[in-house]
Amino acid sequence: MGTNRIEAFSDGVIAIIITIMVLELRAPVGGTWQALWPLMPVFLSYVLSFVYLGIYWNNHHHMLHTCSVVTGGILWANLHLLFWLSLFPATVAWMDETHFAPIPVALYGVVLLMAAVAYWMLQQTIIRSQGPDSILKRAVGRDWKGRLSPLLYLAAIALSGRWPRASLGVYTLVALAWLVPDRRIERELASETH
Amino acid sequence: MGTNRIEAFSDGVIAIIITIMVLELRAPVGGTWQALWPLMPVFLSYVLSFVYLGIYWNNHHHMLHTCSVVTGGILWANLHLLFWLSLFPATVAWMDETHFAPIPVALYGVVLLMAAVAYWMLQQTIIRSQGPDSILKRAVGRDWKGRLSPLLYLAAIALSGRWPRASLGVYTLVALAWLVPDRRIERELASETH
Amino acid sequence: MGTNRIEAFSDGVIAIIITIMVLELRAPVGGTWQALWPLMPVFLSYVLSFVYLGIYWNNHHHMLHTCSVVTGGILWANLHLLFWLSLFPATVAWMDETHFAPIPVALYGVVLLMAAVAYWMLQQTIIRSQGPDSILKRAVGRDWKGRLSPLLYLAAIALSGRWPRASLGVYTLVALAWLVPDRRIERELASETH
Amino acid sequence: MGTNRIEAFSDGVIAIIITIMVLELRAPVGGTWQALWPLMPVFLSYVLSFVYLGIYWNNHHHMLHTCSVVTGGILWANLHLLFWLSLFPATVAWMDETHFAPIPVALYGVVLLMAAVAYWMLQQTIIRSQGPDSILKRAVGRDWKGRLSPLLYLAAIALSGRWPRASLGVYTLVALAWLVPDRRIERELASETH
Repeated sequence: MGTNRIEAFSDGVIAIIITIMVLELRAPVGGTWQALWPLMPVFLSYVLSFVYLGIYWNNHHHMLHTCSVVTGGILWANLHLLFWLSLFPATVAWMDETHFAPIPVALYGVVLLMAAVAYWMLQQTIIRSQGPDSILKRAVGRDWKGRLSPLLYLAAIALSGRWPRASLGVYTLVALAWLVPDRRIERELASETH
Repeated sequence: MGTNRIEAFSDGVIAIIITIMVLELRAPVGGTWQALWPLMPVFLSYVLSFVYLGIYWNNHHHMLHTCSVVTGGILWANLHLLFWLSLFPATVAWMDETHFAPIPVALYGVVLLMAAVAYWMLQQTIIRSQGPDSILKRAVGRDWKGRLSPLLYLAAIALSGRWPRASLGVYTLVALAWLVPDRRIERELASETH
Repeated sequence: MGTNRIEAFSDGVIAIIITIMVLELRAPVGGTWQALWPLMPVFLSYVLSFVYLGIYWNNHHHMLHTCSVVTGGILWANLHLLFWLSLFPATVAWMDETHFAPIPVALYGVVLLMAAVAYWMLQQTIIRSQGPDSILKRAVGRDWKGRLSPLLYLAAIALSGRWPRASLGVYTLVALAWLVPDRRIERELASETH
Repeated sequence: MGTNRIEAFSDGVIAIIITIMVLELRAPVGGTWQALWPLMPVFLSYVLSFVYLGIYWNNHHHMLHTCSVVTGGILWANLHLLFWLSLFPATVAWMDETHFAPIPVALYGVVLLMAAVAYWMLQQTIIRSQGPDSILKRAVGRDWKGRLSPLLYLAAIALSGRWPRASLGVYTLVALAWLVPDRRIERELASETH
């Protein structure tokens, strides 16, 4: 079984999650720039979540490119990842509506953490399915970003009780770290074909 | 006609149904863990429906893999299945808003039952289109899970009048039974190519 | 340019239109069968519109199969068709909320009519792009269903002022006429390959 | 890496954005033609935005056709474009609800401007990835429409303070200018293959 359909389905779900978050951006009352101002935090949390989903989509795209056979285990590990990503809109909405209260900010961190764990599980499932010569395993290598992110999410969750803004700073930093292009998989795929 | 587009369309519809259910997960009022607590049943019914839709997507994926020609009958049998799946969000919402009252729990069972029937009809339509040598027919074999599930749904619907929680338990059990990987189709496809 | 992407985009839009209509099926207040009863007309108008969109998707699928090159004109004729289909949810909602008052029923007919016209325009654009040997032209033939439907929609719009229920009957009859499988395109494609 | 998945994802997001705007078309109260009248501006702003998204989809389709390799930079430039397009529904909703007040009309122009800038950035990223022999570069040529549009958006934003209707006129004119088929890319691709 090829990766065609698992990609198409994941694309669909991620595309819809991104656009459902837009529904939170409700038109403000009154037609002034001031009316727009209170929407700023909502807008920024939309930008942050858009970037996170973009990162996941990007990495998912690269990861499945190393994959030639899709097993039942991979299908379910992928659905598990999509499940956690699907909780973004509700969690962001809760943060927005409580003006970034500690608990909602912590819950957002939990969803980020679980998505990272689910991504790691999917990665391991693919590596296992590829056997000892796994391209993905070589590409991922020591994977310091993948290992560090969950620890940072945990730290941010711990911080949120007192300093929810600091937690949001940590979430933003992790996103920025992932935005830096990661050429590992591209490089491995290139070396494979040469 | 290839299966490409029927897959893409089904993926789109199922992806949207899954994410529309997320809209039911409304942000609670107040930023405490306690505020989150009343959402628990809604969350669990979301998980259950997510798993059901994941199972249908998974099995649909496998089933269409045995299919090389798509007839008009298959297109309509597929739309019929998507119709019943599309009723998940409204039925789940009714269960959630009535705190799992007997009738809404029964209706959820009816939708599960009809989706199972529609799936079975799609399966039969494909088998018939493949003629006496149908791979799908061999793969499905005696199909005890496919035969047992509707009976269990019927039992759960009968139970719901008195014990709606028991019905929910049955729905969960059936989902778990389907989660166990089903390698029949993969095996048949593999034996076909060797 | 192949038809791959125009199909994928149309699939996406039609899939979303279908599932947006589901949002109209709001969970009733109260957990009884009686509470479900007033939803019946809403449910039936959902079924009718689901069938119409299914017919369009089906015929669109077949029509694009005859198409090997996609021109700019085809892209826009296709977007024009999708535009009219995208008005289904709002029109159905208006019918539902006014309990099928004459004007909303007429407007639904107008949208059905315009969608039929847009479909016909797309068909003509494809036929023109295929030149004198157009497979689609041969397949469509005298196209009595395509010619009769707009007339029936017009009649139903005229009827709606006095007998909105009769108009709904006509819409249903036209849908049923299209449900009967139409093997013209399949036959032409088959004769092409032999 | 092929363009297959970046196209599918963009198709999904654009398809959903288009259909989310339909949700703004709320069923009017009362079943008369008069009840429909106040919806006219909302309807026209829907048509305008549908056309804009159609133009973006169309041009995106053509542009990616010149692309055989997708780099990480292209993926992010594409997500950046989708981000600005995703702000259409909220901005249109604000315009609608304030009856086209100056500031919301200006903001709509800002979103149009940023989408044009993001499109131009994506175009440059693809051209750079294709090296000195870039087909896209030749196809785009002097790109007067691409250069003029941002200036017209800026002018419309400046006008909106006093004459929001004039700004809307400018947005409509730019859309019409893009509707005129642009055969540059089709021509270059054709000359490439011969």
